[in-house]
Amino acid sequence: MAVGKDLSIVEKFQERTRQIADLAGSAATLTWDQETLMPEKGATFRARQISTLAGLRHKFLVDPAFGDLVEAASEQATTPEAKADIREARRQHLKAIKVPGQLVRQLASTSSLAYCAWVDARKQSSFTAFAPWLEKIISLKIQEARCLKLGVTPYDSLLDEYEPGMQESKLSSLFSAIRPQLTSLLHEIRDCTLSKTDLNIRGHYPLEGQAEFGKMVLTAMGFDWKAGRLDVSPHPFCTGLSPHDVRMTTRYDETDFSISFFGMVHECGHALYEQGLDPKRYGLPGNETVSLGIHESQSRLWENLVSRGASFWEFWYPKLKETFPGQLDSVSLDQFLLCMNKVNAGLIRVEADEISYGLHVILRFEIERALLSEELKVKDLEDYWSEQMGEYLGVQPANAAEGVLQDVHWSSGLFGYFPTYLLGTIYATQFYDRAKQEIPHLEKNIAAGSMDSLREWLQSNIYCRGKIHSAAELVMEVTGETLQANQFLEYLSTKYRALYKL
Amino acid sequence: MAVGKDLSIVEKFQERTRQIADLAGSAATLTWDQETLMPEKGATFRARQISTLAGLRHKFLVDPAFGDLVEAASEQATTPEAKADIREARRQHLKAIKVPGQLVRQLASTSSLAYCAWVDARKQSSFTAFAPWLEKIISLKIQEARCLKLGVTPYDSLLDEYEPGMQESKLSSLFSAIRPQLTSLLHEIRDCTLSKTDLNIRGHYPLEGQAEFGKMVLTAMGFDWKAGRLDVSPHPFCTGLSPHDVRMTTRYDETDFSISFFGMVHECGHALYEQGLDPKRYGLPGNETVSLGIHESQSRLWENLVSRGASFWEFWYPKLKETFPGQLDSVSLDQFLLCMNKVNAGLIRVEADEISYGLHVILRFEIERALLSEELKVKDLEDYWSEQMGEYLGVQPANAAEGVLQDVHWSSGLFGYFPTYLLGTIYATQFYDRAKQEIPHLEKNIAAGSMDSLREWLQSNIYCRGKIHSAAELVMEVTGETLQANQFLEYLSTKYRALYKL
Repeated sequence: MAVGKDLSIVEKFQERTRQIADLAGSAATLTWDQETLMPEKGATFRARQISTLAGLRHKFLVDPAFGDLVEAASEQATTPEAKADIREARRQHLKAIKVPGQLVRQLASTSSLAYCAWVDARKQSSFTAFAPWLEKIISLKIQEARCLKLGVTPYDSLLDEYEPGMQESKLSSLFSAIRPQLTSLLHEIRDCTLSKTDLNIRGHYPLEGQAEFGKMVLTAMGFDWKAGRLDVSPHPFCTGLSPHDVRMTTRYDETDFSISFFGMVHECGHALYEQGLDPKRYGLPGNETVSLGIHESQSRLWENLVSRGASFWEFWYPKLKETFPGQLDSVSLDQFLLCMNKVNAGLIRVEADEISYGLHVILRFEIERALLSEELKVKDLEDYWSEQMGEYLGVQPANAAEGVLQDVHWSSGLFGYFPTYLLGTIYATQFYDRAKQEIPHLEKNIAAGSMDSLREWLQSNIYCRGKIHSAAELVMEVTGETLQANQFLEYLSTKYRALYKL
Repeated sequence: MAVGKDLSIVEKFQERTRQIADLAGSAATLTWDQETLMPEKGATFRARQISTLAGLRHKFLVDPAFGDLVEAASEQATTPEAKADIREARRQHLKAIKVPGQLVRQLASTSSLAYCAWVDARKQSSFTAFAPWLEKIISLKIQEARCLKLGVTPYDSLLDEYEPGMQESKLSSLFSAIRPQLTSLLHEIRDCTLSKTDLNIRGHYPLEGQAEFGKMVLTAMGFDWKAGRLDVSPHPFCTGLSPHDVRMTTRYDETDFSISFFGMVHECGHALYEQGLDPKRYGLPGNETVSLGIHESQSRLWENLVSRGASFWEFWYPKLKETFPGQLDSVSLDQFLLCMNKVNAGLIRVEADEISYGLHVILRFEIERALLSEELKVKDLEDYWSEQMGEYLGVQPANAAEGVLQDVHWSSGLFGYFPTYLLGTIYATQFYDRAKQEIPHLEKNIAAGSMDSLREWLQSNIYCRGKIHSAAELVMEVTGETLQANQFLEYLSTKYRALYKL
């Protein structure tokens, strides 16, 4: 830590951004603890503590002296890294001065309590128990959007937090182009012969075995266990407390190993990105991940394009069978692959196949737009959810827990977050196509159990770049193309036509 | 959280102290995590984060506006609670303005790294690996003491942090009076017939059984599991992240259940005190525990006076035998009691019997005085430790791990802390004597498995009072007497003469 008296302007600037990062890392630790270990009565005071840390971070960001420091340091920023530090610090400062500290504290405190209310409401499957909290959150988020005034709509302002440079209108046309194609592919599969085959690998998969097999795979992916952990929480997530302390969580279902397994691979994709940031540049604003969409591209790439693929299971299927003796004896590799990629329009987003998944996200995107523009009221949300699920996916939730209460996001104030899940999948197909062109024998390596070449490619093409580029620039830099749905749709079509012999 | 614009002076004062408490609670969460779960590479950035939180807390305390707020609020303080809030806030402010923020940050950061160095050094049993860190810590603590200038010696200034109102000279005469009596009782027991009997309950006590039995006892003591946790760490401790989130740790040895068991009861004594503070007065400076000595009196009271006593085991010994079938079949209750109170001058403080324990503390007190006055150098400490262990307890460590590296305290900068362990035991005997006079059939209740009357007595005589009184005042208030060693020495003499049939 720099504590001397004679710091240069740049050192002062860096020390200040590192203190801001310390506050964020501390709050992330308290949040991680809240979602994994905290005793239930601890919620109220923990909410206070997180709120105080958020308020202090905000106070640092809005400090006019910090603004001056950014401008003074900008004169000495010559490298791409230093320029990115300045650009991001300036962006954060200018955003922060628009939102009053009181609103920031209210958002942090309300979200923390609303999260606990959501946990209870989901247990009781009572949307009514959660609705007042959701109303409070939405009202605060609208206030926040009005302060930010980025883009055209209030939703544009919130999107900027997760996917800087993205707009509601752009997403709307991208998603409108995708939706009919997903629906059409979904219908085609629903009506084919193979989809009527009753393939099922449910059985008894002891928790310890799931953890052991998962850890083997995460180790092969390159997760550094000395710089991270895997724990259990109701809603799986990954959080970087620092580049040297990255934590994933999962949840286990003993009748179906695949829920925890793909969850772990997914979170590990996020974790590798966090662990891949340059530790020497800890806390500098240009050394963060690019956007949630790019973050999600990393989890989706590993989850969908790698671990749901035929090459991956060529190596890992025998090991899975060893871990759970007797459970999969009568299931051939082809049958297993079909099971792992079973298209079955269902109620739960996190258990959805790759085709339905996009529709889940598009539904949430449309609901968020409607809630934020106040065209949809919270009191009508549960019914609206059911109707739209019927229209998009042909299924209807029997209760709120498997419907509108299934996701943690809104309870934590994360509006504008869902679209990044689908964006991530789209980016992932673009990145993976490029990786296959640049890495000799990539699929062969994976089929032989080695994923090092892929991780190293991601390290040098994406992780190590931090936030030097915007998402759009990074896609162009890595793939030579702009963001587009073609490869995503082509990937789905080719993969599922082959699996279902269409 | 109070966020309105029109707060009264008192509300502003309280909100400020609560923010200071939020920072302390956040840092306590990060420290708890560091000692129980944190991946090893996380240490450096965690140290930064804890240091930043400590620096911010210090900044809040030294803020002249906070000093003004304390004085303004003091005019409206009429209740004993409000007066205690003002007195403690003023004391903390005046202490804090004496120590520069830079020194506070250095202490926090160095302690966090030194803790990790201590963990490694203890593993390798290498004092050399830890010595440079200890030197750094001592040099910083001397600087701190010179800034504080409380009392006569530098050590007085550090004592004030843990036992306000206590002085080195006072401890020195108290401990000088105790030491020969402990030595004499120790010799008497060492030479008696019964102490030569080879009684031993070592065996195989599976970890799960130890946890289960421990949890039964802690539940009967009144620990609220919805407002706290029990986990594992190398050096057991208890920490209050808030009155509704109090965490204990223990460590298990499968050959000897008693190490974890008495550790758990000990930490639970601390935890009941933390859980017993008034949650409505969260974060107010008068709602803290009185001193470390008083804190320790709660852990020692439960550990020594309750759970090492005959009444306690009358109820719990059969349950212990059920938990570990076959392990204790040939051991009578009397023999078991002798085992649980076996006097055996040994190397390890936390495993010491009640008589040797005092000598362990007196040794550390004398070393701390000598290190702080620079009469003893760190390079001579390992040898000095061995010599004095020989003189006081008649034993010599074979290596640093079982000698000078056994305790975590110095690595964390806790100089002046050790004496509170012995003070605590002395307070505990005074409190327990009084409890026996005031609670009808106390020992009978305990022998019937009920500890509620004792916990309730402690709640209404000690916990609920927070920091309204100083330690000296509290002892007088509860027992009608001043701090004195008579009851402590009488208790030891009576108990051990009976056990060893002297």
